[in-house]
Amino acid sequence: MSTDMRLAALEYAQKHKQRFLEDLIAFSAIPSVSTDPKRAADVQKTAEWVARRLNALDFDNVKIYPTQRHPVVFAENLAAGADAPTVLIYGHYDVQPAEPLDKWDSPPFEPQIRGENLYARGTTDMKGQVDATIDAVESILRSGSALPANIKFMIEGEEEIGSPNLPKFIEEHKTMLACDVAINPDTGMIAPDLPTITYALRGLAYFELRLWGPHQDLHSGVFGGAIHNPAQVLADLIAGMHDEKGRVTLPGFYDRVRPLSDDERAELARLPKTAEWYMENTGVAALYGEEGYTPDERVGGRPTLEINGMLSGFTGEGSKTVLPAYAMAKISCRLVPDQDPDEVHQQLRQYLEEHAPSTVKWELISMASAPASISSRDSRWAQAYLQAAESAWNTKPVFKREGGSVPVVTYFQNILGVESVNIGFGLPTDNMHGPNEKLHLPTWYKGIDALIHFFFNLAV
Amino acid sequence: MSTDMRLAALEYAQKHKQRFLEDLIAFSAIPSVSTDPKRAADVQKTAEWVARRLNALDFDNVKIYPTQRHPVVFAENLAAGADAPTVLIYGHYDVQPAEPLDKWDSPPFEPQIRGENLYARGTTDMKGQVDATIDAVESILRSGSALPANIKFMIEGEEEIGSPNLPKFIEEHKTMLACDVAINPDTGMIAPDLPTITYALRGLAYFELRLWGPHQDLHSGVFGGAIHNPAQVLADLIAGMHDEKGRVTLPGFYDRVRPLSDDERAELARLPKTAEWYMENTGVAALYGEEGYTPDERVGGRPTLEINGMLSGFTGEGSKTVLPAYAMAKISCRLVPDQDPDEVHQQLRQYLEEHAPSTVKWELISMASAPASISSRDSRWAQAYLQAAESAWNTKPVFKREGGSVPVVTYFQNILGVESVNIGFGLPTDNMHGPNEKLHLPTWYKGIDALIHFFFNLAV
Repeated sequence: MSTDMRLAALEYAQKHKQRFLEDLIAFSAIPSVSTDPKRAADVQKTAEWVARRLNALDFDNVKIYPTQRHPVVFAENLAAGADAPTVLIYGHYDVQPAEPLDKWDSPPFEPQIRGENLYARGTTDMKGQVDATIDAVESILRSGSALPANIKFMIEGEEEIGSPNLPKFIEEHKTMLACDVAINPDTGMIAPDLPTITYALRGLAYFELRLWGPHQDLHSGVFGGAIHNPAQVLADLIAGMHDEKGRVTLPGFYDRVRPLSDDERAELARLPKTAEWYMENTGVAALYGEEGYTPDERVGGRPTLEINGMLSGFTGEGSKTVLPAYAMAKISCRLVPDQDPDEVHQQLRQYLEEHAPSTVKWELISMASAPASISSRDSRWAQAYLQAAESAWNTKPVFKREGGSVPVVTYFQNILGVESVNIGFGLPTDNMHGPNEKLHLPTWYKGIDALIHFFFNLAV
Repeated sequence: MSTDMRLAALEYAQKHKQRFLEDLIAFSAIPSVSTDPKRAADVQKTAEWVARRLNALDFDNVKIYPTQRHPVVFAENLAAGADAPTVLIYGHYDVQPAEPLDKWDSPPFEPQIRGENLYARGTTDMKGQVDATIDAVESILRSGSALPANIKFMIEGEEEIGSPNLPKFIEEHKTMLACDVAINPDTGMIAPDLPTITYALRGLAYFELRLWGPHQDLHSGVFGGAIHNPAQVLADLIAGMHDEKGRVTLPGFYDRVRPLSDDERAELARLPKTAEWYMENTGVAALYGEEGYTPDERVGGRPTLEINGMLSGFTGEGSKTVLPAYAMAKISCRLVPDQDPDEVHQQLRQYLEEHAPSTVKWELISMASAPASISSRDSRWAQAYLQAAESAWNTKPVFKREGGSVPVVTYFQNILGVESVNIGFGLPTDNMHGPNEKLHLPTWYKGIDALIHFFFNLAV
């Protein structure tokens, strides 16, 4: 009986592939760029799109909760009853900015299928992933089954700006969000046909550093030589943030870093993310990083400091002989357990206090922060997904550590007291956050199947 | 008789102050930004404006000579005859870009008088200066005198992009441009009421450095730690271009630098450009520069390396967790005698070859170059201006070295075999090249008087 229901749901998904894709195209066409104040109406429209789909699927209490900035969509189906487990599905419907626009082969918000991929901003991160969970639930409900577990959706609109209002929302809706486990399909797969469970995620501390020199741009001939150039000061400060071994020099930066165990390093070494993989997927001629670690350990298990952006003076066409008045950089640290983002903020501040010269004034702004997280590899939930993914791909999934940040995993742990199963069907080659972001459709369809299996595997 | 003529010319200038100002306002309103291809028609229009004014003044052979980019305006009045000296007046009618536009209190190409100043891009650098020479000539001719010297005008439109076509133009028109001395009113005054003759000018070597890392912007979580960030590489390279004593580290950079003599240092020390002057005029809390030199020696007599602009990654509002694919900087060196701009280009290239890591690809583009120059302080021409300025200001002028670059001075020396008298009525507080560029009108009017005296002082 249960096997028949499972097969019926999988068959439904197979039959409705084209409609699922059309839904995703409509979803991806809305430019829900959360960091851009001019896109606020589009962000709202996208929340309404999600709510409409869940409303159409026998979900109760579908509601768009406003926050101080972008709303959270909630919905639940508790028909499985008190004895069945309750799963909270997390997702975000907002996306990164699409700039630089001229690097896209098709407009970022006009989804286009080329080959096996759907190209648009947000397709892989993470509208395709949110949509896949809804498609899986629809396949079960519309093929005549009841849901094998109670399911709650919480889909936010501020992930790409660091989820500033989400902790408060979770705190204020603890009972509504109560669950046995959270599913977070935002962490992707390591390679096509290699389903992946991510058990550790890095945190984030994102800053903007601003430097002021002379009160306005000066002529570099009339003043150059006597005035400290803020662009040069910024370069000096940034250069000093790493030592010659690729280690971050902020005072105390590594003090709380949990070391990788030998066992864990041996397991990570079995993943296919070799040095060659990193080089092929980025096009660089040589890798870089902290001495003593493999590339994948550097990304998954070690903290970093990156320059996300840098601007000073005249950067247009031609030559302008200006000594700039101002220089700025966007600087972010990826954090590992047990680093504290607030401490890292203080470490960067201390570094600047110790190294910024008196020739400039500076300001450090904290833009976003989230701690790292790590979860169990052999819980009932992780094992249910392990088997589900094996059914869909006919391959045993791998466990990995992820370099990206999913702060919500920490909020679920700390506020709701539940672990997250971090999965997803995005690929490292999907150009997440960059131009030509895409979703690999054959992998996405298998992902919908895996989710159908997963829900059935949860039945008691 | 000659004194009467002189007084009549000065009186004419006094009477026509308002019209002179209206002319300058019309001249400054044309946005002749030579570096911007979209402004090419405006640059041409400005050349025509200059030609029209000279045409109206009994000048012969008024002609707009096309070059590969922006034209040169030439005109001559040789009525003084073969026994009188011939003076070549140099100027440029092009201007710097006005960006950042939001830093201007009034639009850069809508000249506005506020207090004693005329605000607009190009008023001080150097439309006001070009106009003053024409006004002085007009005052002599229209008050009934013949010109005491033969006068040729050569006003170019490419100074702000390094005069790429001027050396060829001078070379090809040697006979037409033949003269006894060149007057270059582009070097300004050290302070109001302190007329100044600049006997040394720095040269320029301007570059754009481009760095490529990964083939496109990457997610800083997914790849950060294993990929060398091009913004960080750029910062490292820039930071390494100065040592802890403020000296430029390019290999061989100081090898050809002509040292300042003790006599020259003593003379420069008498100028009012003290450390306090530099701090007051720039608003910085502390100065910077090469160890062992005063601020004014650093600007006038020592070479520099400045970052004119720097750009990488995401620099908009908000936070974007990108690991940039690309980083660039505009870098320029101010040169002193006897540095060679081509050698400095090779020194920077060698520095990059020695220090750029294999994790990035780089390109170095030479954008503009000109050698430094130095000229005699006691020539007949310098002395004629010394007396003229003393008549106008009732103060003995000072001799100074200038940090800016006037490559044409070197071309005149090398191609025409003549020295330049470097003068002008711009002030250090005129915001040349920056927002709110202005011209101090009382100083400008005295400058017209000084030029009238100068031409009469040349009479044999």
